[in-house]
Amino acid sequence: MAITDLFQKKLAVINVGVPLFYQDLLDQGVEVQKLEWKPPAGGNSQLVAALDQLDEIRDKVEAGNAEAFQRINEARPYLEDLARARDVIPRMGERMLLHAGPPIDWARMSGPVRGAVIGAILYEGWAETPEAAEKMAAAEGQVTFSPCHEHDTVGPMAGLVSPSMPVFIIKNRKHGNVSFATLNEGLGKVLRFGAYGPDVIARLKWMEEELFPTLKKTIELSGGIDLKGIIAQMLHMGDEGHNRNKSGTSMFFRIVAPLMLKTDVERDVIRRCLEFIDSNDHFFLNLSMPACKAVLDTAVGIPYSTLVTTMTRNGTDFGIRVAGTGKQWFTGPAGYVEGLLFPGFSAKDANPDLGDSAITETAGIGAFAMGAALAIVQFVGGSAPDAIEFSKLMKLITYGTNSMYTIPALDFKGTATGIDIRKVIDLGILPIINTGIAHKDAGVGQVGAGLVRPPKECFEKALLALAAQINRN
Amino acid sequence: MAITDLFQKKLAVINVGVPLFYQDLLDQGVEVQKLEWKPPAGGNSQLVAALDQLDEIRDKVEAGNAEAFQRINEARPYLEDLARARDVIPRMGERMLLHAGPPIDWARMSGPVRGAVIGAILYEGWAETPEAAEKMAAAEGQVTFSPCHEHDTVGPMAGLVSPSMPVFIIKNRKHGNVSFATLNEGLGKVLRFGAYGPDVIARLKWMEEELFPTLKKTIELSGGIDLKGIIAQMLHMGDEGHNRNKSGTSMFFRIVAPLMLKTDVERDVIRRCLEFIDSNDHFFLNLSMPACKAVLDTAVGIPYSTLVTTMTRNGTDFGIRVAGTGKQWFTGPAGYVEGLLFPGFSAKDANPDLGDSAITETAGIGAFAMGAALAIVQFVGGSAPDAIEFSKLMKLITYGTNSMYTIPALDFKGTATGIDIRKVIDLGILPIINTGIAHKDAGVGQVGAGLVRPPKECFEKALLALAAQINRN
Repeated sequence: MAITDLFQKKLAVINVGVPLFYQDLLDQGVEVQKLEWKPPAGGNSQLVAALDQLDEIRDKVEAGNAEAFQRINEARPYLEDLARARDVIPRMGERMLLHAGPPIDWARMSGPVRGAVIGAILYEGWAETPEAAEKMAAAEGQVTFSPCHEHDTVGPMAGLVSPSMPVFIIKNRKHGNVSFATLNEGLGKVLRFGAYGPDVIARLKWMEEELFPTLKKTIELSGGIDLKGIIAQMLHMGDEGHNRNKSGTSMFFRIVAPLMLKTDVERDVIRRCLEFIDSNDHFFLNLSMPACKAVLDTAVGIPYSTLVTTMTRNGTDFGIRVAGTGKQWFTGPAGYVEGLLFPGFSAKDANPDLGDSAITETAGIGAFAMGAALAIVQFVGGSAPDAIEFSKLMKLITYGTNSMYTIPALDFKGTATGIDIRKVIDLGILPIINTGIAHKDAGVGQVGAGLVRPPKECFEKALLALAAQINRN
Repeated sequence: MAITDLFQKKLAVINVGVPLFYQDLLDQGVEVQKLEWKPPAGGNSQLVAALDQLDEIRDKVEAGNAEAFQRINEARPYLEDLARARDVIPRMGERMLLHAGPPIDWARMSGPVRGAVIGAILYEGWAETPEAAEKMAAAEGQVTFSPCHEHDTVGPMAGLVSPSMPVFIIKNRKHGNVSFATLNEGLGKVLRFGAYGPDVIARLKWMEEELFPTLKKTIELSGGIDLKGIIAQMLHMGDEGHNRNKSGTSMFFRIVAPLMLKTDVERDVIRRCLEFIDSNDHFFLNLSMPACKAVLDTAVGIPYSTLVTTMTRNGTDFGIRVAGTGKQWFTGPAGYVEGLLFPGFSAKDANPDLGDSAITETAGIGAFAMGAALAIVQFVGGSAPDAIEFSKLMKLITYGTNSMYTIPALDFKGTATGIDIRKVIDLGILPIINTGIAHKDAGVGQVGAGLVRPPKECFEKALLALAAQINRN
């Protein structure tokens, strides 16, 4: 195309660097996306070399990413059943506790994760008091810790899963893989935010004894619930599937309530189960998360693919995994969430970033779909135009747009999906994540919500590792 | 302020007329709202004189409008109970049928309204066959027809209310007035779209025998359901309360399901009631409509007020009422809805505009809040930016913005509320309405959905009548 032809057309312009050009274009009424100028890969010659190396085998990388993206885009997670963790989660040991984020030992665990560990030990009855539980957790070899993500599982915030806990079983009907998550406990003082008082344990016991069997019988009658279909509708109903799940919870409630009445469960038990689900607009979070996990796990290990399959935090470290490097973790220090704190709390109360819930952003929802959930800015801070801008900005670092997840305010364009570590490093734009904020001390709970980004070094390490792996092959 | 100071500021520009200026401003990157140029009141000297006359007593008009707007803005409608129409609706005669829109007799009724009349007569058992019912309806004095609006009631589409039908009772807790609406029958072949087959009558009977007593007991336990609170949330969840009610229906469902289980109603009946509500995303329409009615009725009869209290259609005529002229109707021919027709139907199948549902737009939701319900464009046609523009445009013809109803995509600005007939006439901008499209023949049902505007003459007649009334006083 002749350059003169180009300028006859409506231009979609990205202004990188010199802001003068940006203003000029604005003055001429041209739609233009502003980008702060940075040298590629921040001018780091090692990273530039790694990018060049991937560029040399660009066809292989593109083929890997095309396959990874297609699998992510086509996966169809359904809620199919519930079971106890020990009966279904692979490689779940009898004295094993799963936690959110990359691997971590007791010594480096943050307050809320320690609190949740104590709570899980009390819940299992492995110890009688918080003090005894803490001692057991700290002692060598008495409890094994393992990341949820290494067991096809995800958990919000501390993400604790112990053997007796009931879990949802999500099956990706397109590719056959399965994922798991516990049932959301509700708001206030809850295990996932590190609370472990008697009320927390009593609630978990009730969930095990009444909610679990009721939902199990209900889901068996449902024939499976299409989670991607619900999430697609949520994005047209003000949710982004991470920090807003009100319409998702409502749609789930509408599906299960009549089915519960078809089971043999006693009427008052059904009422209590419905009241419990109704009391917590985040109930669906523990379904959107494993739905995203089941989607992304289909891309794990696809050779040469630079797409991110995991972003997660244990309250100390942020970890990512990339399709082409399989199950290898690339970590950096977890950051602090910028957002709105609940009354009575200040920034010094906050724990660093925590939870497997960034699986939602990794799959193209959460903050990546924030333009679909404008009311969330009242919870995480910012303005409605900011939310729409985030959803646009993330397109610069992703492979494509989701064909099922669309954003009405962007005239039904698909959400940015498939984070490409090459683009993250090249442009210096980090993924944006909506999230809750836990108190830094064990036993307190949630203190706010906001936005956070991963540390850049996760992506740098991943890029270098992928380049090194290609060199070896 | 010096004119030079003015141009130092960020300008919010409305370009009226010559489009060259509009393009100039766009080229300079100035945000500008385009308005087709029309002489005030279309250059009609009688209307200009009426506007001038109201301008002479501007203080009284503004005081009336301020009071009307305040009452509309502060009204708090709650769902408080259910009862049979004959037991609660004022001036409801034993052989009376209420219908949507301004007054009309059988001879001028359109196909779907006639169909609904036939259905209502069969439902009441006043006749045994559609032919006998039609004969009875056409005969002088056997059945009395009266507009819902004249009985504190509203009904979607044909809006038929017969004495035995159960109705919701909505009370405005701020001002004490009450409104009524039947329960939404669901989709497909239904009475409100003029269908009257045996399945339609059987469904109405089931609603009377099972759904009515179950909901009555449930609402009694609820202590009243805050409808304005639900509608405010709907606008953050993709609904506009007229043609999209999915999140509203879901929130209502979540409230009633656990309460139903606290009643003495049999378990299988509860299940059927929940399945019925769940099967119809428009169930909440028959609550958003009377909520709007209860809000607007507080402004009826406020002297000098030029704000619209009713917009409604009977499938033949469009009628409006204005606060300052009380219960007087101003009518014009109902228009045709522009939108999307269901597969198998064409424009020639459509009936003219029909139903009391434009009460939603009159109260500041519906199409006036379309910027909050972008996904609706997939149902009524147009694009997401169009929907946002409609919500902005309506601010030009309304008194103020609603303090409870806000639009996230307009950065949480309130919805345009309180249509001022002076502005409608002066600017020549007619209110926009989202609505369903009925088949023109009795017994067929819904054939599509879209957008429509009232005939201008309703507003012209109202303006002239208000001016004449002021002259007389």
